[in-house]
Amino acid sequence: MQVTKHRPVKDSVERALSQVGDSWTFLILREAFFGVRRFDAIQRQLEVAPSILTNRLRKLVENGLLDRIPYQERPTRFEYRLTEKGRDLYPTITALMSWGDRWLSEGSPPLTLIHLLCGHETHPKVVCDACSQPLTAGDMDWQPSKTAE
Amino acid sequence: MQVTKHRPVKDSVERALSQVGDSWTFLILREAFFGVRRFDAIQRQLEVAPSILTNRLRKLVENGLLDRIPYQERPTRFEYRLTEKGRDLYPTITALMSWGDRWLSEGSPPLTLIHLLCGHETHPKVVCDACSQPLTAGDMDWQPSKTAE
Repeated sequence: MQVTKHRPVKDSVERALSQVGDSWTFLILREAFFGVRRFDAIQRQLEVAPSILTNRLRKLVENGLLDRIPYQERPTRFEYRLTEKGRDLYPTITALMSWGDRWLSEGSPPLTLIHLLCGHETHPKVVCDACSQPLTAGDMDWQPSKTAE
Repeated sequence: MQVTKHRPVKDSVERALSQVGDSWTFLILREAFFGVRRFDAIQRQLEVAPSILTNRLRKLVENGLLDRIPYQERPTRFEYRLTEKGRDLYPTITALMSWGDRWLSEGSPPLTLIHLLCGHETHPKVVCDACSQPLTAGDMDWQPSKTAE
């Protein structure tokens, strides 16, 4: 990719990181994908300080990645469910997990993912939606979007 | 996905986040993919405090995502180049960018990616390597890897 071209000030990576750019946020989303939705359960699972968890959950709700929904009355208790926007991060999280499997698990990935649609063990792959080939940095160029100029 | 099963203590998402789980680290890698490799240039591009940049670059080199390579002598100056492990994060970064394009760009993504292999504008897609269908959270299950038990 070329360095000389003028890049838009803020690309979508930077915007995305402003909403999910810290480890706790990612881990809370991972818990949500595993079905862990309640404050106490998330806290136990991640061993995170309650104040940090409160803060990250609040931001996730504000940014529209989680919905805070009552599941019990007297006293009212809430659980956190992924919105469509939150669920749409799943591919990114599996791509990150795959990278960790390849580079940080010394040949024995902790989890195996099963793709229920085809019934096979799956290794997520990021491909071009036009030609279906895997994307690598060397094969890529970019241009500022016309609409963003 | 089921919540009741016992999960391994530390999955690959968590391991991955221990090496790339903060925004600056991701943005430094993004700069590397755009060909921005020298301290001053990265610093200018990201408007990051030099002490933070020094710290993140050191960790990226320690973790084997960047190589620190001299490009000039007297005085010796270094640039930071992606290793194979670092380059292998490219699909994850494009997946994150895609999410930002869909949810945070109000219909006008700042950058368009061009896939040089096929010549088309590309929208990265995360698919199952067994059946090539896009991965979504609802279609997925998991099990602890036998080797990790």
